[in-house]
Amino acid sequence: MEQYLQALLSGIAGPDRAAMDAALARQQRLAKPPHSLGRLEDLSVQLAGITGTIGAPLERRRVLIFAADNGIAEEGVSSCPQSVTLSQTVNFSRGLTGAAVLARHFHSELDVTDVGIDTDAAIPGAHDCKIARGTGNFAREPAMTRDQALRALRVGAEAARRANDGGVQIIGVGEMGIGNTTTSSAVLSALLSLPAEATVSRGAGLNDEGFARKIALIDGALARLRPDPGDPVDVISKVGGFDIAAMCGAFLGAAACRLPAVIDGFISAVAALCAFRLNPLCAAYMIPSHASAEKGYALAMAAIGLRPALQLDMRLGEGSGCPIMFEIADAAQRVIREMATFEEAGIDDGYLAEIRASKAFQGEA
Amino acid sequence: MEQYLQALLSGIAGPDRAAMDAALARQQRLAKPPHSLGRLEDLSVQLAGITGTIGAPLERRRVLIFAADNGIAEEGVSSCPQSVTLSQTVNFSRGLTGAAVLARHFHSELDVTDVGIDTDAAIPGAHDCKIARGTGNFAREPAMTRDQALRALRVGAEAARRANDGGVQIIGVGEMGIGNTTTSSAVLSALLSLPAEATVSRGAGLNDEGFARKIALIDGALARLRPDPGDPVDVISKVGGFDIAAMCGAFLGAAACRLPAVIDGFISAVAALCAFRLNPLCAAYMIPSHASAEKGYALAMAAIGLRPALQLDMRLGEGSGCPIMFEIADAAQRVIREMATFEEAGIDDGYLAEIRASKAFQGEA
Repeated sequence: MEQYLQALLSGIAGPDRAAMDAALARQQRLAKPPHSLGRLEDLSVQLAGITGTIGAPLERRRVLIFAADNGIAEEGVSSCPQSVTLSQTVNFSRGLTGAAVLARHFHSELDVTDVGIDTDAAIPGAHDCKIARGTGNFAREPAMTRDQALRALRVGAEAARRANDGGVQIIGVGEMGIGNTTTSSAVLSALLSLPAEATVSRGAGLNDEGFARKIALIDGALARLRPDPGDPVDVISKVGGFDIAAMCGAFLGAAACRLPAVIDGFISAVAALCAFRLNPLCAAYMIPSHASAEKGYALAMAAIGLRPALQLDMRLGEGSGCPIMFEIADAAQRVIREMATFEEAGIDDGYLAEIRASKAFQGEA
Repeated sequence: MEQYLQALLSGIAGPDRAAMDAALARQQRLAKPPHSLGRLEDLSVQLAGITGTIGAPLERRRVLIFAADNGIAEEGVSSCPQSVTLSQTVNFSRGLTGAAVLARHFHSELDVTDVGIDTDAAIPGAHDCKIARGTGNFAREPAMTRDQALRALRVGAEAARRANDGGVQIIGVGEMGIGNTTTSSAVLSALLSLPAEATVSRGAGLNDEGFARKIALIDGALARLRPDPGDPVDVISKVGGFDIAAMCGAFLGAAACRLPAVIDGFISAVAALCAFRLNPLCAAYMIPSHASAEKGYALAMAAIGLRPALQLDMRLGEGSGCPIMFEIADAAQRVIREMATFEEAGIDDGYLAEIRASKAFQGEA
């Protein structure tokens, strides 16, 4: 399993700089003030670096959802009972969850994988890649073995590769797992060497006591289990979850097959940070979407060096922010393909010369 | 003309509170932690207040673009020659501009109105509602007469009403007019009693000298023409433009016929502020989209009490941010229509009881 990870990591190359330069040059010929389409221009340049071509459509879209239970849930860190992981996983294929409705609206497929739900039942519409029926409770023991973490990571990498092989042009990385804001805060605290207080949000339904308990559980576990901040797999195996491991693998797998991967909310951002720490080249393939209302989200984004484009105050998880971003990224590709250049727009050469000579324009070049 | 405006203003009613309460109640029954879909929930509640029903689809979408020339352009405040107003207005109907590509991508109509371009030619694909061939140069004289401002405002209000009568379910309010960041800064400075330094951005292609000149021109005009901050029509007529007047009218017209109206960037935000000052009930019908990179944008939004949802670093204008927001608003409507309630999701009553009892949930109610 270590060999699989090493091969995966060494298969990741940087973006195509020549294609990025060509995209940037085309953006500068389009009939608009320099960089006036902002992040849409940046996206088209990033996507050129990923795909090696300018303006490739992003019509085949897929949200990968990794569902798993977390042993830490038995400590009462969530306002939901653990059974919700299973109910909502079933509801994805019934099209009833928030992410399912948003995916439908934005013409996106959902691909649900059971990577560790606490049930023996096969879940209709979900891939069965269960590592175990939930993780260990990190208040008492490591969440999983290193081998389990590596196997879960591989599940995610293979889901990304399956998407790519099936013609999917962009993926999003989401999850379902009661207790996974707690595991994500723990992983983030370990990776950034921060106390839990800096990475834990109160969440939706947590009272003062529950909030304090969540912080104490994480700080206690980090002190006892001492995950190695330089080894994300060690961190995930001690205080993470199967979902986070698989999502980390999905980001790595996407980078390895040059597929753009959209980050959803907090848990997705923490998994992205794990992938980034394993191979920083991954960041070139990541597209942030919305700024989660969970406070650890901003820390994870800053650590990768990314900035979200949507301020929607969402904190649902499930990959729910990805479909919106698929559409915006596809729109960015459409703009670079279809918008007129200065010449095509019939805008006089004086304008063109003036704008080309401007300081701001040269700053962009 | 004053009578038309008074009738328009008195025809604007507040949102439907009963429909908003019903939408909020439904959001609280959907299977998710309280307010975890953030702005999407808020949008569905706002749209219920506007339309009087829950989850009305927003499939018919139209960006209204008002194009006009500004006399102030002859002072060299823009890096573009004035002729670009005409070229780009022609290019809307050719589908070549940034806004045209984005409108196409997001299944939105474009409705272009010449409200004052400096040409005698009829522009193919644009409504001819020309008030004059450009405004006066406010460095030397008022931009227009009060009657002209009122007539331009009416053009916008009628465009909104035409959209509504034609079955359009949401509009966006955009513009094309070289020099209109200068007129917008001037209007904003007048309305907020701020020096031009606080409302002028450098823009795309302006050098230090041009930037300083833009500020001096605005401060000089405000000192000389003394627009009345309590009378937006006076402000527009002295230092605004036909585009701003028409856009202001479009926001008023939309509110009068209970049509949601999306605000684009800086110029659109300033026009929205004019409408808000004429009748504060308008704000209930306004949906902000992206945060413009122009610094006056945030001032205008704060003055209305709105917050944008998209951070795309855009500053193109043309209504280019509206189509993206149409799609997000429509997605919000889809979520409230199609997402499962706790009961439908088969999530046990314990969860439901617990979440209903939670402090955060009651805070939402």
